[in-house]
Order: sequence, then C-alpha cells, then structure tokens
Amino acid sequence: METLSIAKTLYADLVCSKSGAVYDKNRVQTYSSAEKPLLARYDLSAGLERGVLQGRPWNMWRYRELLPLEDEAYRYSLGEGGTPLFHLKRAGRHLGTPWLYLKDEAGNPTGSFKARGLSMAISKAAELGVRKCVIPTAGNAGGAMSAYCAIAGMEAHVYMPRQTPLVFQHECALYGAKVTLVDGDISDCARRIAGERQPDWFDISTLKEPFRLEGKKTMGLEIVEQLDWQAPDVIIYPTGGGTGLIGIWKAFEELEKLAWTGKKKPRMVAVQAEVCSPIVNAFAADAKIAAPCHQPGTTIANGLRVPAAFGDELILDILYKSGGRALAVSEEDMKTGLKEVARLEGQLLAPEGAAVWMAFRRLLREGWIQPEERVVLLNTGTLYKYIENLV
Amino acid sequence: METLSIAKTLYADLVCSKSGAVYDKNRVQTYSSAEKPLLARYDLSAGLERGVLQGRPWNMWRYRELLPLEDEAYRYSLGEGGTPLFHLKRAGRHLGTPWLYLKDEAGNPTGSFKARGLSMAISKAAELGVRKCVIPTAGNAGGAMSAYCAIAGMEAHVYMPRQTPLVFQHECALYGAKVTLVDGDISDCARRIAGERQPDWFDISTLKEPFRLEGKKTMGLEIVEQLDWQAPDVIIYPTGGGTGLIGIWKAFEELEKLAWTGKKKPRMVAVQAEVCSPIVNAFAADAKIAAPCHQPGTTIANGLRVPAAFGDELILDILYKSGGRALAVSEEDMKTGLKEVARLEGQLLAPEGAAVWMAFRRLLREGWIQPEERVVLLNTGTLYKYIENLV
Repeated sequence: METLSIAKTLYADLVCSKSGAVYDKNRVQTYSSAEKPLLARYDLSAGLERGVLQGRPWNMWRYRELLPLEDEAYRYSLGEGGTPLFHLKRAGRHLGTPWLYLKDEAGNPTGSFKARGLSMAISKAAELGVRKCVIPTAGNAGGAMSAYCAIAGMEAHVYMPRQTPLVFQHECALYGAKVTLVDGDISDCARRIAGERQPDWFDISTLKEPFRLEGKKTMGLEIVEQLDWQAPDVIIYPTGGGTGLIGIWKAFEELEKLAWTGKKKPRMVAVQAEVCSPIVNAFAADAKIAAPCHQPGTTIANGLRVPAAFGDELILDILYKSGGRALAVSEEDMKTGLKEVARLEGQLLAPEGAAVWMAFRRLLREGWIQPEERVVLLNTGTLYKYIENLV
Repeated sequence: METLSIAKTLYADLVCSKSGAVYDKNRVQTYSSAEKPLLARYDLSAGLERGVLQGRPWNMWRYRELLPLEDEAYRYSLGEGGTPLFHLKRAGRHLGTPWLYLKDEAGNPTGSFKARGLSMAISKAAELGVRKCVIPTAGNAGGAMSAYCAIAGMEAHVYMPRQTPLVFQHECALYGAKVTLVDGDISDCARRIAGERQPDWFDISTLKEPFRLEGKKTMGLEIVEQLDWQAPDVIIYPTGGGTGLIGIWKAFEELEKLAWTGKKKPRMVAVQAEVCSPIVNAFAADAKIAAPCHQPGTTIANGLRVPAAFGDELILDILYKSGGRALAVSEEDMKTGLKEVARLEGQLLAPEGAAVWMAFRRLLREGWIQPEERVVLLNTGTLYKYIENLV
C-alpha cells in the first residue's frame, strides 16, 4: 500500500511551445494564441534526488514532482503506468540483436497508453474546476477519457469514427459517456465537435490541452528507470497525434536537467501507416510542418489514422534533432508483424505496435540500426480491442 | 531488472488429494488412480523468512520457493501475476462498506488469470520433457496455453466451443496453435479430445495435471501480501473449474504453516451462472460432490460454462470448512453489475467478475457480509475479449 508522501510537484508554469510566452497556470488553458501546444515547465533549479522514488508504487504517479497536479486530492487514478519493459531475448536471438526491448502498454487501465494522458488531463481538469469534457478519438483515448470522467464524476462526450471497432464504442457507453458516431476520420470528429460543443465542454483533444502530454511523458521516465538510468540508442514509436513521442523526448530533457541520466538521448523514430503518413511525407521533404494527409483508405491501426497532427512541428523537430527517422508501414506488413511477434515472444501487439516491429526490422536490414544497439519498441495497447479489424 | 537469486523451490512431492498417496514428482503426472487431482506438497519444516521476497519483481515468480519449478532455465514467463488489489473506495462509500477490494486479473498476459496457471504448467511440462500440449477451454485458458507454448517452442492444440467469441479463437491462431471448434460446451471439447488425442499430447485440462493449480495459488499469496499479511474476512470467486478457489485456499494453508500469516482464513464464496451452477446445487443439497449440470442455455460469462468440475469435491470441502457460500447470478444481473462497476469505479470487469460483484451485493443485503468486513472480489480478466457477448 502506498504511504502518502508530502512531496510536492515542481510544476512552475505553462509556456507556448513556439514563442515561449507564459500562460497563467491557475486557469483552464487550451493552446497558445499562436495556435501551438502549451508545455508545462518545471522548476528543476533546486535539483531533486533520484532517491525520492524509492518505495513508491510502480505506477506513473511515482514521478509526481515532474507531474503538474498540485493538489493530490484531485488525483484520479486507476493504476496507470508502471508497465513492463520486456527484454525480447527470443526475437533478439532470431535477429542477432541482443539488446531489443518492448515497452508494452497493453496492461494499462482501458488497455492502452492513453490511460496515462487521460488520467493526468482529467485530474488536472478537475483541479481547475472543469465538469464536462469532450474528445474526438480514434478509439482508445475515448475509452480512457470515459473511465476517468466516470471516477471524477464528470460528464463525458466522445466523438468517434463510425468504423471504429465496436469494443471502443461499447466501453465508452459502459462508463456512461455520450458517444457520437461520425462518418469520417478523427479530423471529421473534431470538425463535428466544433459545431456541437457547448460552452462548458472542455476539449481534451491531443495537445489542445497541455496535460495529456505530461501523462504520456511518464513512458519516457519509466523507460529510462527500467534501463537503469541509461538512455537507449533508438526508440521507435507509432505516431498518430504524436503526444507520446513528444512526451518521451520531454522526459529526456527534464531527466538531463536533473542529472538523473546523462546527455545522451535516443534517436527517435516515428512510424505511420502507409494510408496516412503526413509526418513521413514531411520528413522526406525535410519540412518543418506537415501538410494534412487526405488520402482515402483505412488502416487496421486505428490510432494511426490521424491526417493532421496538431503537434506536427514539435514531432518533426524532435525527429531532426535526435537524428531520427520517419517511415510508413503497409497493412499487410502489420499483419505479418503481429504473427511474428506472437510466435517469437508470446506477445500480442496492437496493430500500431506491429507497425513499430516491422519498422525496426526494416531499419535493421538497412543498417540504420546496428545489431549491438539498444532499441526500445513501443506497443501502445492491447490487440483484443482490434480483433474486428482482423477478421 | 531482476537479480537472479539462488533461491530453490521447496517443492517436495506430489500427493493424491483424496488418499494422500505419493506420486513420483520426477515423471509427467496427470491425476491419481482414484481419479482425483494431485497436489504439489512443499517441505516447509525448515521455515522461510518473509524477507526473501524483498527486492524481487512484482510478478508471481517472486514466490518461487512455493512453486514447483526446479530448474529456472525452464521458466516460461510473460510477466504474469503481480496484479493490483484495488481498494474500491467509491463503491465502498456507495454501499457503506469501507474495506472492499478488487483483485483485478485483467492486466495479466493474454488478459486473464489463466496466464498464471498456464505459465506454471507449461514451464513444468517443459522441465519434464513434454513437447506437445492439448487443452479443452472456454476461451481464456486456450489463449494462455497458446502463448506459453509459443515461447516454450511446444505444439499447442486447443479445443473450444464454437460459440466462443472470435477474439479467443483468433488469439490462439496468432500464437500458432491448432484450434478445433466443437459444437457444445467445454465437456464436449474434453470428449472430443479423448477421441482425437495423440499419444504424445499432454492434457493440460483443469486439475488433470497438477501445476496450473500452483500458478493460480499465487493469487492467494498476492492478496495476503497486498493486505499486509492479514487474511480478509471473505473472498468471492467466480467458479467454473474452480482451480483458483482451491489455489487461493492452498495459499492460505501454506502461509499459515510458514507463519507468514495467522490462523485466520477467509470465508470462501463460489459464484456461478444461473444456467450452469453444479457447485451451487451441490452446496444447497449439502453434498460432497457435484452432479454434472446439463441444463441448456448459454452465459455471457464463458468461463462459468463448466458443467462438471473435476475438482468438485475439493471446492465443496473448502466452501464448507471455511464457512462459505455458493450462489448463482443471472445474465441480466451480470450486465447490470458491469455498468455499475464501470461507472462507480472506472473498472471494466469480465462478466465473471460482474457476477462476483452482484453476489457481493446480495450477501451484503442479506446481512451475511457485515459492512465492516474486509472483502476481496476477484475479477478474472479483461472485458475486451467478451464484447461480442454484449452486442
């Protein structure tokens, strides 16, 4: 059982990711006047000992100094985070890569990494007085928001593409959320919300409020702690909205400032689906921002059907400065990857995770990843919610 | 990361649960000549300090002295066990029961408590030289067996009722198992296996090999450790084959011998589905064994469709000697329970867990459970695999 600590957050202020302008952290905020994401900034000047973590439960709240919640009474938690980092020894033997790891987010509440961001965002929203939330979602974020709204006693409105597997729709309804099915993709859901949103509905869209990012950041914190405070050489991440990729990078920056890890940072790789790869296209063109991708077609990796990421500039910047890559994977390849990892490692990956696996295979084959490098693959959630896409 | 300890198992021998006759533990065993389950017995005479657990990873293998694997090289693990024990504060407030807990098995590999038993059974089978396994299953056990067979490099044969949700069938196939769909229930699957089984297929049926029980036992070990080595007053368990109920009781017996906990043991409650309640019927008749229940009808709780449990005598004995109960829950009630817990606690229970919740509600209303008692509800797995049953 957790012994409540008197530890306080080091959360200091909220700044525009583009201009650095400071925003009032004591008010409900969305994004900056420059239409860019706001980032939580922490006062790390006084330092912090790694030892504070000792004895704390193995979930994302162990890093509470680096999370923005100020009053612990508003912590709405279902035990999110604290997921395993599997050393893929069998797959590694098969491919000649002895230091291959899988950060597996399937065991989270509501079955995906979205639980981290939504636990954080809903807790912080509750602290700031929000009572009703709305979200456009490819599936998992909607389920997670519904669960945390249920325990926070908030009203939840979820807008989801009509072709999302039934399980995603049902779980939101079970939690008591109002679910609206929309013809189109997540961008169409956002447009529909713009027309129907009531004045007291707070929009929890990816990066349009500042705190889902802080929850996702804990994936990076955990990876480093699980690797005994050493950065891996490469992290491969399935990129829809990209919050996790930005969050993991933010974790490395904060840990470096605290000297909990060294200066070394991983090369960050963004993986998308071939039918929807705006970041891959922008990266190939060496562009700073990504043009919306309005190619038709669906993917079995619902989380990768994001035609326009609000954090495109941040994502691309991280790919460039980390010496990373961006690549797209076909539907057929995702299915191949699923079977391969299931049989080699006994792990069922979500299609997004299978895309990451196939990207790793390609980068290894190309020689961009060296066999002796330490590589972390990210699996975002449980496959069980996607079975409808496979039959 | 785990530091490998030199700790050895205290596994001593294998005995018939009825006669006490000893069986050779160095050979592959099934069940006794009296057609009763075999139980692993440990040599606890030299004692063992609780402190051995310190620093060990939070998964079921932390109790390795109380598990039968002798050579750690055969440990086939996907991180099973180490599941949370949630203190249901909101639901408890709602019902006036401040000490209500949920042992939630949804986060296990393959999404259910079956991972514990199958990790143990497949590891032990591998150690004893088995290369091919077969199992009749209501769903979750088949998925778990397939996953562990995949990483152990074993051939897996799974027999499953045709009406099992697709997700259960697909996961076995993804792991490379051969899946046979059978018209009927799990007993019909067992009959079909009897006719088709090859001489070198080892039968992993519930309690027809001795070691799934040992894996399931770790649920009991964890519950006690999570309650700071105090037994709860009541444990409510969804009972199909009943291995978990028997295993949890066995944990209490072994922990008492080690003096890791006191003499107090919980009252054990078995919950079944109204359409298939052989244990409930036997308990009502004060019988020592349960007559097979061949009532027609299906249940959304696939794991509770077990017409004849091989461990019936052990289950009933535990219910009687613990001062427990057995009760059946309707399909409608399970659906009500699902929604109730989702909204109160943000938790999605499997239908089996929802049955447990409704049984708790009834026993509390009847006054059989007192509001101040410490009660542990068992949720066996993730709801996501059952959505097909709900639409």
